[in-house]
Amino acid sequence: MTTLHKRIFAEFLGTAALLAIVVGSGIMGQQLANGNFAVALLANSLATGTGLFVLITILGPISGAHFNPCVTVLFWAKNERSNIELLTYVVAQILGALLGVWIAHLMFDLPILSEGVKIRTGAGQWVSEFVATAGLLITILLGLRSRGEAMPALVGAYITSAYWFTASTSFANPALTLARALTDSFAGIRMEDAPGFIGSQLIATLVVILAARFLASPSAPNR
Amino acid sequence: MTTLHKRIFAEFLGTAALLAIVVGSGIMGQQLANGNFAVALLANSLATGTGLFVLITILGPISGAHFNPCVTVLFWAKNERSNIELLTYVVAQILGALLGVWIAHLMFDLPILSEGVKIRTGAGQWVSEFVATAGLLITILLGLRSRGEAMPALVGAYITSAYWFTASTSFANPALTLARALTDSFAGIRMEDAPGFIGSQLIATLVVILAARFLASPSAPNR
Amino acid sequence: MTTLHKRIFAEFLGTAALLAIVVGSGIMGQQLANGNFAVALLANSLATGTGLFVLITILGPISGAHFNPCVTVLFWAKNERSNIELLTYVVAQILGALLGVWIAHLMFDLPILSEGVKIRTGAGQWVSEFVATAGLLITILLGLRSRGEAMPALVGAYITSAYWFTASTSFANPALTLARALTDSFAGIRMEDAPGFIGSQLIATLVVILAARFLASPSAPNR
Amino acid sequence: MTTLHKRIFAEFLGTAALLAIVVGSGIMGQQLANGNFAVALLANSLATGTGLFVLITILGPISGAHFNPCVTVLFWAKNERSNIELLTYVVAQILGALLGVWIAHLMFDLPILSEGVKIRTGAGQWVSEFVATAGLLITILLGLRSRGEAMPALVGAYITSAYWFTASTSFANPALTLARALTDSFAGIRMEDAPGFIGSQLIATLVVILAARFLASPSAPNR
Repeated sequence: MTTLHKRIFAEFLGTAALLAIVVGSGIMGQQLANGNFAVALLANSLATGTGLFVLITILGPISGAHFNPCVTVLFWAKNERSNIELLTYVVAQILGALLGVWIAHLMFDLPILSEGVKIRTGAGQWVSEFVATAGLLITILLGLRSRGEAMPALVGAYITSAYWFTASTSFANPALTLARALTDSFAGIRMEDAPGFIGSQLIATLVVILAARFLASPSAPNR
Repeated sequence: MTTLHKRIFAEFLGTAALLAIVVGSGIMGQQLANGNFAVALLANSLATGTGLFVLITILGPISGAHFNPCVTVLFWAKNERSNIELLTYVVAQILGALLGVWIAHLMFDLPILSEGVKIRTGAGQWVSEFVATAGLLITILLGLRSRGEAMPALVGAYITSAYWFTASTSFANPALTLARALTDSFAGIRMEDAPGFIGSQLIATLVVILAARFLASPSAPNR
Repeated sequence: MTTLHKRIFAEFLGTAALLAIVVGSGIMGQQLANGNFAVALLANSLATGTGLFVLITILGPISGAHFNPCVTVLFWAKNERSNIELLTYVVAQILGALLGVWIAHLMFDLPILSEGVKIRTGAGQWVSEFVATAGLLITILLGLRSRGEAMPALVGAYITSAYWFTASTSFANPALTLARALTDSFAGIRMEDAPGFIGSQLIATLVVILAARFLASPSAPNR
Repeated sequence: MTTLHKRIFAEFLGTAALLAIVVGSGIMGQQLANGNFAVALLANSLATGTGLFVLITILGPISGAHFNPCVTVLFWAKNERSNIELLTYVVAQILGALLGVWIAHLMFDLPILSEGVKIRTGAGQWVSEFVATAGLLITILLGLRSRGEAMPALVGAYITSAYWFTASTSFANPALTLARALTDSFAGIRMEDAPGFIGSQLIATLVVILAARFLASPSAPNR
């Protein structure tokens, strides 16, 4: 097992854990909340925020704890990940995400995979995903500059907040979006709505990369 | 782009993000809470507290992360911001706040701007805003003296708490108050009630500045 | 103003803020929760925990941030506070606590003081107060030994937890108990039940002091 | 009192406190939540997470703050605990757990012990306990490698999250499972379902130990 293997495995494992957390806590919240979906989303956002804090703390030193193709693309664009790392990380994230949904369904005695039925489409949702993804990437970029050691708390807090302030509950992650199209539960999304989400996420990633390049160009001042 | 430009932009962006968080999470909470407004306010306060933690961590090193005219006036009175900074920061905060409301409305498919209808007036509300603003400024002043690096957690925790212990849910910010008069949603306020809030906030700012000067005067001991 | 004056004022101000937080967030929670008192207590415990984190961070460097006669007695017994400090701290805490209730009532347009009507009596309640107070003092004693800088988060987290795991919601503070007997709201207590609470708190304080002395005696090992 | 005695006592006291928190906050949540069990579980998970943060911070420097036979077995397998420590820690944890349930019942005026009636059995529950325990041990192992001082926050956050993303609410602890079979309350479990939980927990512990040995073997790279 080489160091790259280890990092890929960390991305696989971390993304699986992330999806098990997101989907599992969504199911638990929905089962217990008697139809009060705000309480279910409180549970969902609290579990995801605290879970991300843990995952980024323990796996960050190994792989960087991306768990998200947009984040890997961002670091690849900054020349901090190679082409082969980009490819293998993203594959590991997608496979990990699917595994995570399977594990959640297994724990809650649901069919291994099911088709998402929750309608999430329209301009508001796409703007939400753009905002959510751009916000996440800006948080990571600026967080690294000023207080790298705060990253786990920073990303955990960001996602907890973004569950609430965006209309889409902030997927902000193509691997996660794909996997959530395969669960007919609280965290699910219709498969036909997934491309709109992923498109918004990729556009936001591109915009953030271009903006960061512009700000770092010779015409822009160092801080 | 000069350094001042960069700082002004950070204030603009940060205040926009703050308002998108406050207004967006208020809408989401209200939509999901089935009329249990305590659950909606839990979501609102949790999203705002975690969001402020993120915004102050990432933008603090650039502009100081004021996002609030009262805070900028406080640092101006301490000679830590110039006249031009005071003016440009406040303009950036107001414009950013408006942009934030627009973004929240865009995400939730609401009209760009709408008029706030929530009645927030009377002695109890004004006392609340005085207490909320004075508490915020005292937290910042003493927090800087003792543990500056804790500021993001400190302000995030303060606001989470102040949403609940004041009757007004702690606006404590004139730019935010103005912008919240332009949303007919959970976080809104009637435009005609905004001046009372802003008046209380400014009086509290003045009182804190005068008290800090008195305590720092030669007749008062150093700590 | 001498240094002692400053410390006494910090205890007065901090205890007032603590009571405004406890009573104010209780009123807000009760008003919004539609009779779901678990949601009200979630708000109450969250506001108190985050509020204590702020208060101890900012006032700790000035007075030690006791806000609680039991804590002052503990440090007095350890010879870290003089007789005059014990006396003045406790008086400041009691007066501050009363002021805090007044401020909370003022913010929520209630009569300045009212008589608590919530029945809190019986063996379970007294055991709860014993456990709550002993746990708080042990947390402080051991927390100081191992990670003093974590004290604000430690006490905030302790109280958030103790609101829930004790049957009395953890008053654990004679000055706070007295003041809460003067509010007819969510956080109130019948005046006739206050002595039982305060008695339990003082017994717990005595037991912790004696246990700490025994463990620190020559026959006990250093760590 | 020798140092080992002190450590055993810390395990006893800490496990007692943990159970008083888990069972007590479960009772309080259930009593107040008007049948909305999601709100009760929010309270239960918040109280346990913040409580663990406190307990691990203050008792970690004394005994390592295991409070869990699976954790002690893990460190024993790593040769960081002797046979005698393994035995005495586990006995202290079991006795402490029972004491904690007694204290919770005492505070809430319930019979000293009662028989758990909540049915928790079946494949989903067992998979959940496997996932919960493996996740906890991996969090501890990796957390120690990268940021040991973050352990209290890490374990507190893990358990808060795991209450929600597993179908079993994450017991992940044989001593705690046994003790929760002796309470007829929100946190209880049928005695006849306890062996299935404990079996899953022990299998997960074994798997994590074997995996850690494999990864640390000469054929695996150092990080």
